[in-house]
Amino acid sequence: MKKLILNDIYWMKLAIKIAKYGMFTTKPNPAVGCVIVKNNTLLGKGWHTQYGKDHAEIMAINSVKNKDQLRGATAYITLEPCNHFGKTAPCSEALLNFGISRVVIGAKDPHETKNESGISKLIKSGIEVIIGVCKPESENINIGYNYSYNYHKPYVRCKLAMSLDGKTSMISGKSKWISNISSRKDVQYLRARSGAIITGINTIIFDNPTLGIREEKLLKKYDRKILQPIYVILDRKGRLPHNAKIIKYNKKYNTILWHVVEKETINTKKLGIQTIQYKKEDNLSWILNQLYQNNIHDVLIESGPTLSGQAISQGLINELWIYIAPKLMGNWTNPLLILPEIKNMDDIIHLKLIHAKKIKEDLRLIYKIKKK
Amino acid sequence: MKKLILNDIYWMKLAIKIAKYGMFTTKPNPAVGCVIVKNNTLLGKGWHTQYGKDHAEIMAINSVKNKDQLRGATAYITLEPCNHFGKTAPCSEALLNFGISRVVIGAKDPHETKNESGISKLIKSGIEVIIGVCKPESENINIGYNYSYNYHKPYVRCKLAMSLDGKTSMISGKSKWISNISSRKDVQYLRARSGAIITGINTIIFDNPTLGIREEKLLKKYDRKILQPIYVILDRKGRLPHNAKIIKYNKKYNTILWHVVEKETINTKKLGIQTIQYKKEDNLSWILNQLYQNNIHDVLIESGPTLSGQAISQGLINELWIYIAPKLMGNWTNPLLILPEIKNMDDIIHLKLIHAKKIKEDLRLIYKIKKK
Repeated sequence: MKKLILNDIYWMKLAIKIAKYGMFTTKPNPAVGCVIVKNNTLLGKGWHTQYGKDHAEIMAINSVKNKDQLRGATAYITLEPCNHFGKTAPCSEALLNFGISRVVIGAKDPHETKNESGISKLIKSGIEVIIGVCKPESENINIGYNYSYNYHKPYVRCKLAMSLDGKTSMISGKSKWISNISSRKDVQYLRARSGAIITGINTIIFDNPTLGIREEKLLKKYDRKILQPIYVILDRKGRLPHNAKIIKYNKKYNTILWHVVEKETINTKKLGIQTIQYKKEDNLSWILNQLYQNNIHDVLIESGPTLSGQAISQGLINELWIYIAPKLMGNWTNPLLILPEIKNMDDIIHLKLIHAKKIKEDLRLIYKIKKK
Repeated sequence: MKKLILNDIYWMKLAIKIAKYGMFTTKPNPAVGCVIVKNNTLLGKGWHTQYGKDHAEIMAINSVKNKDQLRGATAYITLEPCNHFGKTAPCSEALLNFGISRVVIGAKDPHETKNESGISKLIKSGIEVIIGVCKPESENINIGYNYSYNYHKPYVRCKLAMSLDGKTSMISGKSKWISNISSRKDVQYLRARSGAIITGINTIIFDNPTLGIREEKLLKKYDRKILQPIYVILDRKGRLPHNAKIIKYNKKYNTILWHVVEKETINTKKLGIQTIQYKKEDNLSWILNQLYQNNIHDVLIESGPTLSGQAISQGLINELWIYIAPKLMGNWTNPLLILPEIKNMDDIIHLKLIHAKKIKEDLRLIYKIKKK
């Protein structure tokens, strides 16, 4: 009979904590943590660091000097161990080879096929397997990875910074700076979690951002292994200035920049840009599908009220991240979102607040959008 | 030598807690709490409940059955004891008469004159007096009471409910309901703390609120002794409908309603309303002064974007209370505030977030407005 031991939760929480070390660097792989425990004593731990590198289980096994100790130990893994040869050997096999006798798993891996999954392999081999300890937290680590598998599209976050009165920029287009420096640093973590960042041409023209990930503490902590996201500029009519900062940034850091246009207007080769051909009838949903085809699980939309508003009203946003600065900007300003006409209180869009955090005197609010 | 004993903070915190029982019922008096302690054991406690009733010290003394015990005890009082005959005898005298030998005070009372204050009386009588234990918390209980004494005007809070995108009502004027029922109950506590509530005629015409305090739990908890605030309707041109709900409410509960007009247009006597004559050149500041002259320490502005915006841009607001509902209302709506034109990021209004609280899925944020 399978027993859930109270300490299982304690050890799984540790595995979750170390899994998160990989949140910014493992994409397109999921972030995974593993701790190995015997007689309620920690033997070893590991986490997946980068695509192509050792999985968490292998790193945990390797961290134990005396491999004999592994016999009869319990492995806590935030995600079901893999059972296939990819860039690395199957982890389920390694666990068996070293005599691990009990495996506690946080979340199932939707990518594992049912009959040949890591879990079924372990169970068939007579190992005690417990599934679903700290399941929500374990699933949350890889929310985009799970979502994109289930829905065949990326998980989309939309980030906006606003004054308390819901304004994002002056009529002149000026918006530097609404949110404080700590909030802007926080955004860099959000970018680092994303496989792609989408913006609109107006944001490039008016704000001229790099949308880069240059936060020193973030880069240092993750050993400069942050995989830069794909940058996507929606520019239907081809108005991208060849001297936009984002182009320079992308050239310098050798990232991928998609210029989504109906007709290309600039010398892409010279600027190190990829043209994505866009037809008149194509929309944001089409772009998201292109990204999905490129193995992108997490997309961040960082743009102005028009594109953000379109994404929301087209039902393409999973999470709305709002940074509220302690400021009032008044009425000669641009709104948070441009939405299609809503005439009645019954027709307004309902959100669900899932997280609220103070960042110095700014607030960071995360909402989901409720389906009607 | 005066000794601050560590336990002093513990007992003062208890005095603060019970002082707050009076927050909704003592106006125009301050809310005060008192606990009497001997050998680190609670002997008695009391708080001021209503204007004209016993002060906290007297209630605390009365709560001790065996008055002999009071000899040599310590009294913890959130506010300096009074030293004058008003509706009740001076509390400083009572403390001396019963042989209290040590008095610990939270905040000074600005209304006590320097040389004849309760504190000087106690010190002259050879009692050990400690002043300023938990001073900020003690002062905060009566923030309006202290402020109005120092600045000769009431302390003004402005409350607004908005959607996440900073909207307060549809173009049609409809706004029921932006915030959730718990937030609306919370507002009733804010009203109950206020000596006056100011609104504008547009709010009366479009929303037709009572602005009343009818929350059962609130009324029950404070024994239905809540003193209804003075209601003030700013109605320069005299557009108040004689069937407005606020008029009916005020008649029913026998409260005071000021109709601030340049020229009265309705039969005030029949409707139980007071006309406040207003000259063309008079403004919100003038109204606040009228309230100050009437012993009002705390004013709440509960109105639309025009009046609230004017109050803010004229520098008349001390605290901005914003309830944010998890909703998006779009652009066919009225803004949070109508402010004079601000063209540059350098000229926007800066706030200071002093409190943030989740009320179910709404957020209640309290800001102060920074001086330029």
